[in-house]
Amino acid sequence: MQKTSTRLADGRELIYYDRLPVRRSDHPDRRTLPKQTSSSRARFDSLTGEWVIIASHRQDRSFQPSAADCPLCPSRDGHLTEVPAPEYDVVVFQNRFPALTAALAQVSTSALAPASTGGGASGVAATGALANVPAARTAGAAHPTRPSSSILRSIAGEGRCEVICFASDHDLSFADLSSDQARLVLDVWIDRTRDLARSPGIEQVFCFENRGSEIGVTQTHPHGQIYAYPFATPRTNRMLDMTTSYRRRFGRNVFDDMLAAERADGSRIVAQNPSWLAFVPYAARWPYEVHLYPKRRHADLTGLDEGERDAFPPIYLDLLRRFDQLFDTPAPYIAAWHQAPAHDGGRDFALHLELFTNRRSSGKLKYLAGSEAGMDVFANDITPEQAAKRLRALAP
Amino acid sequence: MQKTSTRLADGRELIYYDRLPVRRSDHPDRRTLPKQTSSSRARFDSLTGEWVIIASHRQDRSFQPSAADCPLCPSRDGHLTEVPAPEYDVVVFQNRFPALTAALAQVSTSALAPASTGGGASGVAATGALANVPAARTAGAAHPTRPSSSILRSIAGEGRCEVICFASDHDLSFADLSSDQARLVLDVWIDRTRDLARSPGIEQVFCFENRGSEIGVTQTHPHGQIYAYPFATPRTNRMLDMTTSYRRRFGRNVFDDMLAAERADGSRIVAQNPSWLAFVPYAARWPYEVHLYPKRRHADLTGLDEGERDAFPPIYLDLLRRFDQLFDTPAPYIAAWHQAPAHDGGRDFALHLELFTNRRSSGKLKYLAGSEAGMDVFANDITPEQAAKRLRALAP
Repeated sequence: MQKTSTRLADGRELIYYDRLPVRRSDHPDRRTLPKQTSSSRARFDSLTGEWVIIASHRQDRSFQPSAADCPLCPSRDGHLTEVPAPEYDVVVFQNRFPALTAALAQVSTSALAPASTGGGASGVAATGALANVPAARTAGAAHPTRPSSSILRSIAGEGRCEVICFASDHDLSFADLSSDQARLVLDVWIDRTRDLARSPGIEQVFCFENRGSEIGVTQTHPHGQIYAYPFATPRTNRMLDMTTSYRRRFGRNVFDDMLAAERADGSRIVAQNPSWLAFVPYAARWPYEVHLYPKRRHADLTGLDEGERDAFPPIYLDLLRRFDQLFDTPAPYIAAWHQAPAHDGGRDFALHLELFTNRRSSGKLKYLAGSEAGMDVFANDITPEQAAKRLRALAP
Repeated sequence: MQKTSTRLADGRELIYYDRLPVRRSDHPDRRTLPKQTSSSRARFDSLTGEWVIIASHRQDRSFQPSAADCPLCPSRDGHLTEVPAPEYDVVVFQNRFPALTAALAQVSTSALAPASTGGGASGVAATGALANVPAARTAGAAHPTRPSSSILRSIAGEGRCEVICFASDHDLSFADLSSDQARLVLDVWIDRTRDLARSPGIEQVFCFENRGSEIGVTQTHPHGQIYAYPFATPRTNRMLDMTTSYRRRFGRNVFDDMLAAERADGSRIVAQNPSWLAFVPYAARWPYEVHLYPKRRHADLTGLDEGERDAFPPIYLDLLRRFDQLFDTPAPYIAAWHQAPAHDGGRDFALHLELFTNRRSSGKLKYLAGSEAGMDVFANDITPEQAAKRLRALAP
């Protein structure tokens, strides 16, 4: 894998990840773009203990442009896009309309990368300004002694929102990728996780894909996103709380016991190979939901060894192809990598991917209404065992 | 208010709430309905500490029937509905496709009700079977000593799901109600809260309204729902955790301090009267979100005094009418009453209503994609101060 860091016309970083060596310095961004000046805030909800990102500069972002205007396709004459080169394997760049705005201009170079061949010289130096941001895990301790002012508090919404294009062909989906290409995407996720987790002020790295207009996806080009948050996320914090209380009670790891229970039961397993296990979770919230775990526990993607990396594409592509066959058209889905926070919680956390769709059947969506959106209580109409049985029966 | 409890053809309870005395025994349900035999389960997610309801019998429930087939309109010749009478003020009945299935057939009669004039004789007696259900707040303590089996555990999904029809006129919305009618709805919410919280096994009562197809509403008739859960909900549990840690740290109530801070700041206040305060919360998750609090703290709806009840309709109708004017068509919304659990947490909880829409602008929805649905991190494009300013500027 060759990694080449460059800059777009407005100063955002773009990184080419190529399977084979290729010269990347010949294609500067020829657009004229306004300088990025936006900034967001993260506000703390004192009633729930959760951070909310307020990003008012995003109101004008693009909303489902036509394929001809796709900003994720390679550039060609008369159609200059976010990617200056005429083709690419995988490319990552800072989102033009980010929820979390950059203080980080230049992240550290990954040990994986053989060379950083381009750009970057004009980049803003890393400010280190994030180092003093309170981590969400300890935010409660940061209450000053005057309650009424501490109740309304915020931090800079500094972090990083990246777009990752899985392939240059506009018409593919992730499920269409070759194993080699999917492996390259995995290597990029690993590289981004390593780089971003090292960056000052970053508390958690989240690699994910939203697919389908029912999920609100504004671009159909095969792509995902990577968020580097300046706080640990609420869902991860809850899992860490559960691992802690479980270890205190039983002296064991809750993820290990859960995987052992799923393997012993078997009724919810969808697919597996020597390195990975995929199953519908016992308390699934979504109509079709599959969790994919490496059988050996790792805190995050960087811990995967060569064998586990090689074994990932076949099982993940298998799952996505099953999802594509669930309904009369390919299922909308969210695929979310759950990793330990950058600086905390690694001991007991288990890296895994959660893949789910909000479609119940060909004509019906699962909406988040009062119980879900108001109280966080999900009602699922399809039993996890039924869902696993249907997914097993589909040919990948 | 006259309260009359009756039974539908399949044994479900239906309760008429009338402003003036009226004979309700003349209109039996003339339909032939299959007996309700469904049952649901609540499964515990050992990784997040949250309950998920698995209700597979709901897959066949109706999905946006035409107005002519509305099951919430009063019955007329040739069109027999869920409501046998030819008109009603407010009516409540057990949902035919409930997420939580009934063990409770007969809830206790409210002190508010002057008479229970009808039906009920053929009803199934209360089983009391729920009394041994572990409360979610203490569920962690219920782990047996064998971790691998305790990890996959569930309880009966016994509780109660009610439909509340706000008016018999199909074409109204809540915002169209008179103050008298809105006050009757409030009295019904109070009565249902009191009755259901007393029922065996019920840990939390949740009154809410979903409005609009973008929220997934399957019926356009003006109505809401009431869920009586056999566990305290995740969102309420988080708020209780925050009230506890705040009191430990500051010796004060976090809701009181938050309301004082909002009143002192003022920039997010939308409306108020001597008894109620409505504001966009500092860390709003949704594009337009308003929280409505009684200025005097109560644990739940039953604590509201006569003056507070009288003062509710004007400010709530005002808010709904502002929401109706935000966009080119009336905003889809969720209105959610947050109350203390039935048996726990009342000391520091503050009753309030959370009203929000998932519409960002006339053509755009706020979707829950990777960050929200995967990590519970909301990104909001509209600042709470902008939202409050717009809502203040609209004529109610």
